[in-house]
Amino acid sequence: MTNTDVDIMTLMSDLGARARVAAQELAQSTAEQRNKALQIAARSLRERSNIILAANQTDLEEARQRKLSGALLDRLALDDKRIEAMASGLELISAMADPVGRVLQAWQQPNGLDIQRVSVPLGVIGIIYESRPNVTADAAALCLKSGNAVILRGGSDSFNSSREIHVCLVEGLKAAGLSADCVQMVGTRDRAAVGFMLSSMTEWLDVVVPRGGKSLIKRVQDEARVPVIGHLEGICHVYLHSSADASMAREIVINAKMRRTGICGAAETLLVDSDAAARLLPDIIAALVEAGCEIRGDAAVAAIVPNVAAASVADWRSEYLDAILSVRVVANIDEAIEHIAMYGSGHTESIVASDVTAAERFLRDVDSAIVLHNASTQFADGGEFGMGAEIGIATGRIHARGPVGAEQLCSYKYVLRGTGQTRP
Amino acid sequence: MTNTDVDIMTLMSDLGARARVAAQELAQSTAEQRNKALQIAARSLRERSNIILAANQTDLEEARQRKLSGALLDRLALDDKRIEAMASGLELISAMADPVGRVLQAWQQPNGLDIQRVSVPLGVIGIIYESRPNVTADAAALCLKSGNAVILRGGSDSFNSSREIHVCLVEGLKAAGLSADCVQMVGTRDRAAVGFMLSSMTEWLDVVVPRGGKSLIKRVQDEARVPVIGHLEGICHVYLHSSADASMAREIVINAKMRRTGICGAAETLLVDSDAAARLLPDIIAALVEAGCEIRGDAAVAAIVPNVAAASVADWRSEYLDAILSVRVVANIDEAIEHIAMYGSGHTESIVASDVTAAERFLRDVDSAIVLHNASTQFADGGEFGMGAEIGIATGRIHARGPVGAEQLCSYKYVLRGTGQTRP
Repeated sequence: MTNTDVDIMTLMSDLGARARVAAQELAQSTAEQRNKALQIAARSLRERSNIILAANQTDLEEARQRKLSGALLDRLALDDKRIEAMASGLELISAMADPVGRVLQAWQQPNGLDIQRVSVPLGVIGIIYESRPNVTADAAALCLKSGNAVILRGGSDSFNSSREIHVCLVEGLKAAGLSADCVQMVGTRDRAAVGFMLSSMTEWLDVVVPRGGKSLIKRVQDEARVPVIGHLEGICHVYLHSSADASMAREIVINAKMRRTGICGAAETLLVDSDAAARLLPDIIAALVEAGCEIRGDAAVAAIVPNVAAASVADWRSEYLDAILSVRVVANIDEAIEHIAMYGSGHTESIVASDVTAAERFLRDVDSAIVLHNASTQFADGGEFGMGAEIGIATGRIHARGPVGAEQLCSYKYVLRGTGQTRP
Repeated sequence: MTNTDVDIMTLMSDLGARARVAAQELAQSTAEQRNKALQIAARSLRERSNIILAANQTDLEEARQRKLSGALLDRLALDDKRIEAMASGLELISAMADPVGRVLQAWQQPNGLDIQRVSVPLGVIGIIYESRPNVTADAAALCLKSGNAVILRGGSDSFNSSREIHVCLVEGLKAAGLSADCVQMVGTRDRAAVGFMLSSMTEWLDVVVPRGGKSLIKRVQDEARVPVIGHLEGICHVYLHSSADASMAREIVINAKMRRTGICGAAETLLVDSDAAARLLPDIIAALVEAGCEIRGDAAVAAIVPNVAAASVADWRSEYLDAILSVRVVANIDEAIEHIAMYGSGHTESIVASDVTAAERFLRDVDSAIVLHNASTQFADGGEFGMGAEIGIATGRIHARGPVGAEQLCSYKYVLRGTGQTRP
């Protein structure tokens, strides 16, 4: 091992051991304490906004020197509005019902044993994320709300901003009589820390939640030995069934693609039944082009709408996160479901159809975390589900799927109350 | 890579790809089909019992030549009664409610979107187990019930027995019009197959469920890159609070330790409050010794009960799975909870107490999958919970905790029904 490896190991083991102790403390804390910590942290974010903005300027200058793209700079940039959004986010999470200690199920066995399944915190959660500094506040708040200790490993681009946001969170913890170790930040930009979290912290981390682009996801898949709640890409589809209402189809497609192009619930591919393509596509594509969207279509699309760029298989597999839409004409609902199974990422897909039987078929047979009928894929969001906030949309199938809020950061235990029962 | 590595890779990739296709077929199968497959498999087990018993004789002879212990030979051995138990187990699972397609939650958002959380199969499950041949039937049945394709990797000791049991399962699948690939068995005893399942089948396996002893668990912890529903050891505790009723305490301790000593829910350590030790221990220890149990106690125990062997820290960490009990006197409930946090395995712990406040404190603060008040730890069993059957007791915190039945082998998806909603 190099000296750096030893340093990382020492640093991370220390964080892990502290987090484990903090998790025990949190498990015995009250909801009032955890909520108070969130409220004070929100106040601290507002009070310290100038310090946070100054730190953010440092990050932005360094990022410009490293020639980061405009989209990345935008994710990284904070302003008063974004700080206020973070603060009110913490208050919103604070006001939500306590996800811990809920009786999820209760029944009595014939022998008189009362059995309850009760929600409990997961323990210690590792969050690995990239340039958005607001994830520091959001992720920590959801972990704290659900009684979990958290180790945050933010992107090196937002290192200074995240550190100042972290100061506010610690202020909240202290004011509520909780240990600062409940929310810890990895104090190095060394990427070896990510590798260590993924491979060598099974003793201290109950689960890792990675949030980021393809290189992070690839790394998680290659290296993870700790359990992962996975957030892969969102190659989301809108499928227009032959029974689709034309104006509803247009509204949904434009919203699903263009409302915000950079989020994981944005539509990337439009599928249209062949016997409705001529009726629906010209109007929709004209509106999209007007809104600044590039269209890449298959041959059948090109036959209907002139001057459309050709789509290749690479397009079906692309999460553009940009104002680009691939469009394919399919023979029928079977081919649409097959296309989604083949090229989709199991995130979010929507069918627009007046035919309810077709819609129910799609909702049942499309195997994605979120399936919608007659609604935009951009509803793929914990807030829109009424969960208050989310840490991301899980595309894995283990533990949590779809939006991951405070409730999904809980495990459960079985509590049995008896009167002396022994097993025959 | 050696030729063997290539062979294993080819074999396992083929199993994986087939399982993935079968999982898609199963996701669209009806509960009636899956239940019929289980019923026909049960009938086939009874009809082919002589063939299964002959294969089991071959396994037993080979095991005796390899000088397997009596306990292992007992786990491996089948007789008419055990085959009937397997068959009726399949019928019991077949009769249970369908765990797939259940609406777990349903609500409407203010914008009119109807949201449902609906249970769906996990996909493809890998089961890695050891010498008990009945796991072949039980595990496959739970996977099939919950709409999952399964790849079974049984112990090499029970290879011939499991292969014949597998024939019965395939007969059931075929009779129900389902593909034989829904339940596949790894057709080699090569232990490299286990390594391949753990490390290289992320594309095909949604989760691996290991069932076995410490060497398997160690291997899973070292090598797993696929998600794991973990079943570690069961270092279960009974804690006698100072308020415990003497006769209830005796009945529960004897049952928790001696009903069956080889199961994971058997008690391994007894903790007793110091101000109740003299009242409770002599009688309990006498009864245990009478029943053939070896006692290993700390100094305080030895001071009360003469001729007790000395317990060391190694005893607090031991899952004996045998007629041995370690006994420790603790100052109070705090020390009991600390002892369990330090040495327990998060499986199952019971408090015997008349004082309800103390009991509720224990139930809340002991962080184990199952906590009981005034009942035996041997209730740690899916059947005893009313789940029909189980694949084991999960001691991890991700996805499933406690008994893992058909319901725990499901994931969920969100189904949203709208009327043209777009996101503002």
